[in-house]
Amino acid sequence: MIKKIDHLGIAVTDLKEAIEVYKNIGLEFVGTEVVDEQKVETAFFKVGESYFELLAATDPSSPIAKFIDKNGGRMHHIALAVDDIEAEIERLSGLDFEMIDTVPRKGAHGNLIAFMHPRSTKGTLLEICAKAKA
Amino acid sequence: MIKKIDHLGIAVTDLKEAIEVYKNIGLEFVGTEVVDEQKVETAFFKVGESYFELLAATDPSSPIAKFIDKNGGRMHHIALAVDDIEAEIERLSGLDFEMIDTVPRKGAHGNLIAFMHPRSTKGTLLEICAKAKA
Repeated sequence: MIKKIDHLGIAVTDLKEAIEVYKNIGLEFVGTEVVDEQKVETAFFKVGESYFELLAATDPSSPIAKFIDKNGGRMHHIALAVDDIEAEIERLSGLDFEMIDTVPRKGAHGNLIAFMHPRSTKGTLLEICAKAKA
Repeated sequence: MIKKIDHLGIAVTDLKEAIEVYKNIGLEFVGTEVVDEQKVETAFFKVGESYFELLAATDPSSPIAKFIDKNGGRMHHIALAVDDIEAEIERLSGLDFEMIDTVPRKGAHGNLIAFMHPRSTKGTLLEICAKAKA
């Protein structure tokens, strides 16, 4: 079951500059975190029950570096919060959605995440995301 | 003051097909609305405190038709809820954000909306959005 928008991932070229811009827009800055597995540095902002996640590459081989080469800085993905990520992967796969991750992997804050291919969602990169179990 | 994510605008080529896809993903379908001023038909889905707004062009001269010609179906904009849209336009303009709309105009559900130019937001098309006054 989809509970809410967990966060919006936005690819940026310069994280420091982008943090200042989003502070000025009026979002509440939470902090930064490096996610080595994705070769990104992230910055989080709280907006109601959701977050903005700015994403900057820490290495040219990062998926975000490749995305920016092709698209420039822009929205990258929408993450939807779920409780049981394994059950959701199974449910969505059963409905013929193409899962990029058929097994959950670790995102920022130790969350478990799985991406759906934009081919099966009419062009939008969607992520499902579950809080790390305590 | 930014209160929450009001909605995410997603450009789609075929609204009926996209509605079925987003129902299958597990979002709660609310309904459709034609916004003549923008030459779009919209479909809304509730997700927590926010909405997904699918946008399909009703005419080749629609801004959404032009966007899809260039980008294909994909995320189009992020709308942030505010109380006083005139005050927010003034605040953001004062911080040198480039407002596409310096005067609010009408969006879906009679809401008042104003877009910020992606040039001044590091590449993302942001909208501020206030509920229509009763």
